[in-house]
Amino acid sequence: MKIYDIEGFPNPLRVRIALAEKGATNQVEFVPVDVMGGEHRSEAFKTKNPDATVPMLELDDGTCIAQCNAITEYIDGVFDGPSLMGTTPAERARIAMMNLRAENGLMNAVGAYFHHATPGLGPDLETWQCAEWGNKQKEIASATMAYLDSVLADNEFLAGDSFSVADITAFAGLGFADFAKVDIPESLTNLQAWRAKVAARPSIAG
Amino acid sequence: MKIYDIEGFPNPLRVRIALAEKGATNQVEFVPVDVMGGEHRSEAFKTKNPDATVPMLELDDGTCIAQCNAITEYIDGVFDGPSLMGTTPAERARIAMMNLRAENGLMNAVGAYFHHATPGLGPDLETWQCAEWGNKQKEIASATMAYLDSVLADNEFLAGDSFSVADITAFAGLGFADFAKVDIPESLTNLQAWRAKVAARPSIAG
Repeated sequence: MKIYDIEGFPNPLRVRIALAEKGATNQVEFVPVDVMGGEHRSEAFKTKNPDATVPMLELDDGTCIAQCNAITEYIDGVFDGPSLMGTTPAERARIAMMNLRAENGLMNAVGAYFHHATPGLGPDLETWQCAEWGNKQKEIASATMAYLDSVLADNEFLAGDSFSVADITAFAGLGFADFAKVDIPESLTNLQAWRAKVAARPSIAG
Repeated sequence: MKIYDIEGFPNPLRVRIALAEKGATNQVEFVPVDVMGGEHRSEAFKTKNPDATVPMLELDDGTCIAQCNAITEYIDGVFDGPSLMGTTPAERARIAMMNLRAENGLMNAVGAYFHHATPGLGPDLETWQCAEWGNKQKEIASATMAYLDSVLADNEFLAGDSFSVADITAFAGLGFADFAKVDIPESLTNLQAWRAKVAARPSIAG
């Protein structure tokens, strides 16, 4: 299987951490995509992934899977190791909910701020911007950080006692926040402590 | 288990169809939420669901699950009947991807148009609007309809040969498009034929 991505970008990082958590990084061929050159918007790439996004998973039979959560669904199901998506229906539902909150409220909100209310990836790639929307999403990202901090007051990880894909999404979202200069308040001590703990995991610290 | 929702709204419809597909509608207590009166934004409701959204699932042990995809994850796992989310990792990944395309590109895009570029639910509820964003999302909804039509040229359902949660999301999204007066072109004959077929399912036609 192949992962089309670009190292160091926030959504690709989510899939790379998931692979490392499953001990499966070396079972994947990484294909670099020249995002800054617009390769992800080329007709050749959009034939594989009409979303024009990275990361994208290509299976050996040619099936192409886009969208981080769909890719992680595959990785979690096909490789051994502790489940990132949960096992019981209640556990899966709780992880899915927290993952969506981290994705919509943090990762995507920071992304909307970055792409719409800052120069983002530059004028060649940011062909339509809506600063009013982007700035509102920055507020949402800040509110989500406070919410996640409150969850972590009572839970070791975002969806309970076990590390899950929700933690991966939120961790990558905080990295994106740093990059986009969205403040992560020091006063959110639960969030800061959780972040340090997650950063020390072998899947991330290496 | 309880579902907090409001009949006739697009996201609640997704969960109601999922329950009906599993033959489980009568195993759930529906609790009406006065969305037009802002009940979903009350402190009492936000204690259960900080997203301030319906539908919301409450389990018998008090666990609250928000977000349609998380609720459907639970419903699909806990009730018998054909799987809505897929069984093999590849199938689950493909369904998740198509469901996200239907959700982001259609359901949520129509929702953004409705809530931001029309009077939406009225001035008491639409406390922050961004018309420029809403109108762009209408364009995205139209483009997604054309994309889904192209997928249905080669597939009986959106994720392949079997009905799945992706079909539920897209079907509810088209209903929302009708309500919000986002045109569903007659020229999209694959999409129109699929819609008629889905509408005739017992879970929807009754």
